Amino acid sequence: MPVGTAGTVKAVPQDVLEELGAQIILGNTYHLYLRPGHELVRKLGGLHRFMSWNRALLTDSGGFQVFSLSELRRVTEEGVSFRSHLDGTSHLFTPERSMEIQIALGADIVMAFDECTEHPAERERARQSMEMTLRWAKRSKEYFEAHKHEVPWAESGHRDIGASGHPALFGIVQGGMYGDLRRESAERTVELDFPGYAIGGLSVGESREKTMEMIAIVLELLPKDKPRYVMGVGYPEEIVQYAAMGVDMMDCVLPTRAARHGLLFTSEGRMNIKNARYAQDQQPPDPKCGCRVCSRYTRAYLRHLFVSAEPLAAVLNTVHNLAFYLDTMRAVRHAIKLGDLSGMPSRSVSLA
Amino acid sequence: MPVGTAGTVKAVPQDVLEELGAQIILGNTYHLYLRPGHELVRKLGGLHRFMSWNRALLTDSGGFQVFSLSELRRVTEEGVSFRSHLDGTSHLFTPERSMEIQIALGADIVMAFDECTEHPAERERARQSMEMTLRWAKRSKEYFEAHKHEVPWAESGHRDIGASGHPALFGIVQGGMYGDLRRESAERTVELDFPGYAIGGLSVGESREKTMEMIAIVLELLPKDKPRYVMGVGYPEEIVQYAAMGVDMMDCVLPTRAARHGLLFTSEGRMNIKNARYAQDQQPPDPKCGCRVCSRYTRAYLRHLFVSAEPLAAVLNTVHNLAFYLDTMRAVRHAIKLGDLSGMPSRSVSLA
Repeated sequence: MPVGTAGTVKAVPQDVLEELGAQIILGNTYHLYLRPGHELVRKLGGLHRFMSWNRALLTDSGGFQVFSLSELRRVTEEGVSFRSHLDGTSHLFTPERSMEIQIALGADIVMAFDECTEHPAERERARQSMEMTLRWAKRSKEYFEAHKHEVPWAESGHRDIGASGHPALFGIVQGGMYGDLRRESAERTVELDFPGYAIGGLSVGESREKTMEMIAIVLELLPKDKPRYVMGVGYPEEIVQYAAMGVDMMDCVLPTRAARHGLLFTSEGRMNIKNARYAQDQQPPDPKCGCRVCSRYTRAYLRHLFVSAEPLAAVLNTVHNLAFYLDTMRAVRHAIKLGDLSGMPSRSVSLA
Repeated sequence: MPVGTAGTVKAVPQDVLEELGAQIILGNTYHLYLRPGHELVRKLGGLHRFMSWNRALLTDSGGFQVFSLSELRRVTEEGVSFRSHLDGTSHLFTPERSMEIQIALGADIVMAFDECTEHPAERERARQSMEMTLRWAKRSKEYFEAHKHEVPWAESGHRDIGASGHPALFGIVQGGMYGDLRRESAERTVELDFPGYAIGGLSVGESREKTMEMIAIVLELLPKDKPRYVMGVGYPEEIVQYAAMGVDMMDCVLPTRAARHGLLFTSEGRMNIKNARYAQDQQPPDPKCGCRVCSRYTRAYLRHLFVSAEPLAAVLNTVHNLAFYLDTMRAVRHAIKLGDLSGMPSRSVSLA
């Protein structure tokens, strides 16, 4: 899922996202709540209509951004109070409030309000945080079930997806870097019965091996007939690896954020386009890529745009990186149908 | 002509420019000379190929930017020495150097090296400046004629336009705000015999009436069977007015630069999209515009993008403003064919 933080995948028009084959994008509840505000979005028909995006939308719970972006946050049983990074105003996110906001935004997939355990965390701290996330998951579900029909699109007719007339709420597994806590979190989250499950609190500074270990432990316990979503990952080779392990969904700011810093993902590896070696390079960014950027522009031109701080640099770099990521996932889906992921680039894993 | 200063119309991909119907865009010699450098562009096949733009390109002489952007400039009979606004390095632009650079860039239309007289200017100063521009025009032409076949595309086959196998050099009329100097400049520039003529040194702070007066005086003396180009104008109503007076070509940063500051041009006038009144406005930016922005997005969404400093704001605002300008010129051309410009928006002028 490309990340569309504030109701826009940064620098990319919606028709280009469609052409790239993005089936679902992610919106950040924290950002949209602060600006333009969820009540405004609800009034204007929900986020799909507000941003003119008729395909699927997932919103996160707001919890992670509160931890990473806001100031002076205080966590209590009730929820998290914090100050906006934009203007310093005080706010409170609770499980109920997060549901209310996400329902107002009208996402197709709503995420339970969780606490993303910091890393590193002592075992006891990780346990307490996991217990809190479980209690918050229960509260999230109760509020969600009572209000899920209030999405802005409920009355105006059904959307293509969500034919049920309401969004789906996913639970989130936490537990820090402790296998037994991850197991317990997974089992007790599944007991709460969600239509999909996410694995949160990963890619927060731990080793790649640890990430994989945690994912493997949790995947064993999540129902195979429900979507399984690892939040906030990863590099192209990672997403292939996780998909091979059985992960169905991922989101990451990497392709879009790296693009704005001049980092391109290609079939030949990562390319820092501002490097002087590309000044006269007339090849496309990725000779094996058929995207609209690689079909038309050279590395020399992209380098010029980037070193000149031209706004088109962010546009073109982002379009290519998203094409690369979405092509990677298309190849993964194809390989899954064929029953073998071993032919995937930079990978030699086969389906479990 | 949309302005594509550094080999990019800021924030707009080339395929969108094509779709908008841009037939020709302008590149700034000063910027391209400093970065990425005209020798690099020549080596990579010229500006058309460098930026992947197969339609027409016009480059200015570099003179105006030297005056408006560089530091510590010194004008002598030989040319203008200046320091780069990017890194403070010393450079010298002469008529011959300007031709050499523009030929290396490979523009279809090359502009003579002129001195844009400052405003206000005393009569004697304006006369001296005009005389200098005439001497520089002669030197420009001499160098150009001797080297015009050196454009990067001369060997690789002809371009769609410029079937002659070489670019065209336009002369520039100066003379400050003095009618008789403008007349003399026009007559003596025409004597030098160029395939097209520009009127420079306008829209530099004088009144709209003065601009029109100068244009009217000069147009009388320029051959009607050669393109007549007013540089650096203007607002939508201005370009209609000048076209009605007989001007064939104009360029202006206004649609693109204003877009990046949130100013939209519409059939209902100018719209500052950051205004709070648009926060819940579900209309397209311009209900009478059929561009890809007005067909898909609302004022509320564009306002949100702009106040959130999202990169997509510059993209969408610029695409709409260019659509508005290019639609305006399309309507002008249509009206000219019908022989009457009186039906043009905000205008009640008929063809002279």
